[in-house]
Amino acid sequence: MGNSKELVVRTISGSAFVLAVIICCLCSHWTVFAMTFIFMTMLLWEFTHLAGTRKLQRILVFTTCCTLLVAYFLYTWDIIEAGWLLVPVFPLCALIVSNLFVSGYNVHDGKPNGFDSIGYEFMAIAYIAVPSMLVCNAVTMNYGFSGYFLLSLFIMLWSCDVGAYCIGTAFGQKKTSRKLFPSVSPKKSWAGFWGGVACTVIAAIILWKCSMLETKLVYSILISLVVAVGAIFGDLVESQLKRNFGVKDSSHIIPGHGGMLDRLDGSLIAFPAAIALAILLGII
Amino acid sequence: MGNSKELVVRTISGSAFVLAVIICCLCSHWTVFAMTFIFMTMLLWEFTHLAGTRKLQRILVFTTCCTLLVAYFLYTWDIIEAGWLLVPVFPLCALIVSNLFVSGYNVHDGKPNGFDSIGYEFMAIAYIAVPSMLVCNAVTMNYGFSGYFLLSLFIMLWSCDVGAYCIGTAFGQKKTSRKLFPSVSPKKSWAGFWGGVACTVIAAIILWKCSMLETKLVYSILISLVVAVGAIFGDLVESQLKRNFGVKDSSHIIPGHGGMLDRLDGSLIAFPAAIALAILLGII
Repeated sequence: MGNSKELVVRTISGSAFVLAVIICCLCSHWTVFAMTFIFMTMLLWEFTHLAGTRKLQRILVFTTCCTLLVAYFLYTWDIIEAGWLLVPVFPLCALIVSNLFVSGYNVHDGKPNGFDSIGYEFMAIAYIAVPSMLVCNAVTMNYGFSGYFLLSLFIMLWSCDVGAYCIGTAFGQKKTSRKLFPSVSPKKSWAGFWGGVACTVIAAIILWKCSMLETKLVYSILISLVVAVGAIFGDLVESQLKRNFGVKDSSHIIPGHGGMLDRLDGSLIAFPAAIALAILLGII
Repeated sequence: MGNSKELVVRTISGSAFVLAVIICCLCSHWTVFAMTFIFMTMLLWEFTHLAGTRKLQRILVFTTCCTLLVAYFLYTWDIIEAGWLLVPVFPLCALIVSNLFVSGYNVHDGKPNGFDSIGYEFMAIAYIAVPSMLVCNAVTMNYGFSGYFLLSLFIMLWSCDVGAYCIGTAFGQKKTSRKLFPSVSPKKSWAGFWGGVACTVIAAIILWKCSMLETKLVYSILISLVVAVGAIFGDLVESQLKRNFGVKDSSHIIPGHGGMLDRLDGSLIAFPAAIALAILLGII
């Protein structure tokens, strides 16, 4: 594929992704739920395939995460009672027990057993389902729906990516530039890090000016710092994960952009931390 | 140590353990919380040492689990608001990111990276912190304290152990006996399994007769079946875990009984499943 054709494909699919996110964020809590559910299942699909999770356990990971998200969403909107939040406990117990029924090898002495991939199953819940649950929680504002906070988070995330890329390309690629984490991602520089942080803070100030972030300015800046640091380290963790599995892209589902995990990597750390902070600060 | 002296030590320490559990269950929700907190930290200590979790990550696992348990307990008793339940999100995010900062080797190609023990960290949360949280929830009855349900669960669990041991020893040790899961635990037989289930059901019927289980008889039996199956498979999973790590006892903290993980293995699956079912059935 030529470089210019690749750029067109990247631009079109990237814009479609951004447009879909904006529409879902602003319509209703049901579109946010649908978006989150679709993203979560795609992320789980990619993650469990990368991790080589066996079929039985993949089904149990999906069941645990889906029941968690659905129960949490319905509870948030007062459709079901709190007791239903415990339904995911059953597939979770089954997931722990299922290790008896899958075969594998022992990382310590090479003997066969079922524990070699056990980590990734539980990591999938913490790394993918927890952020999804919190995203569904981020659109409840004074017991009603407001997608502005979630949209603000996406805008800050994208600002961070753009800022880190531009400043990193301009100032971080000299031989003498200090690198952020060369063992995981050889190109990322500290210049890019500070560029990303600066752009995110500027985005937060603009969003606050436009009343998209309805809180104090200092809280908006605090949230933007959490988003920026979370996004950059979320990106690095995902790079390390791919490096561990020996792949370059998590999948090829978005033309020109790789997989969903590549697209949403930063948000998996930035969003849960920022949303938890926003709830504790009383912003949402 | 002589066999008779070992038996005396086992009996004394076993009785002390049972007595401590009974007293904690019946006093108040604070003693239940204290018991759960102590058990959880001991279990986490054993589990992370078995798994070879690195220091930084061990601290983050402890922080995540402890904040989860404390926040959930205080929320259950209306001492703090629901928003505080999100505090554990911060150490959880830090735990995911911390993988960047620990070194290890790659299970797939032997190259260095930090992902080899990542699973066990997240498993610790699902396997140890989730049951602990639910145990704290099991003593709320009509917005007041009642430890009878939790004590009934312990009595059913012990009945299952005793029944499985006696019937298994009497009928399951012939050459022709069908074994339950020989690759993990060569001695456990199907005879022991059915003996354990039968004793647990009998215990449930007696507990129901004594009004310790304040619900329909059919619900009591249902709970007892979940406890029995959960206890037996929880036991097997813990055996597999120890086999994986190449140890016989999880530690030597209880004289004559091994570690806490050996003592509470069955409850880690039986209790969360039984308590979730009890809440969904409206028993607690």
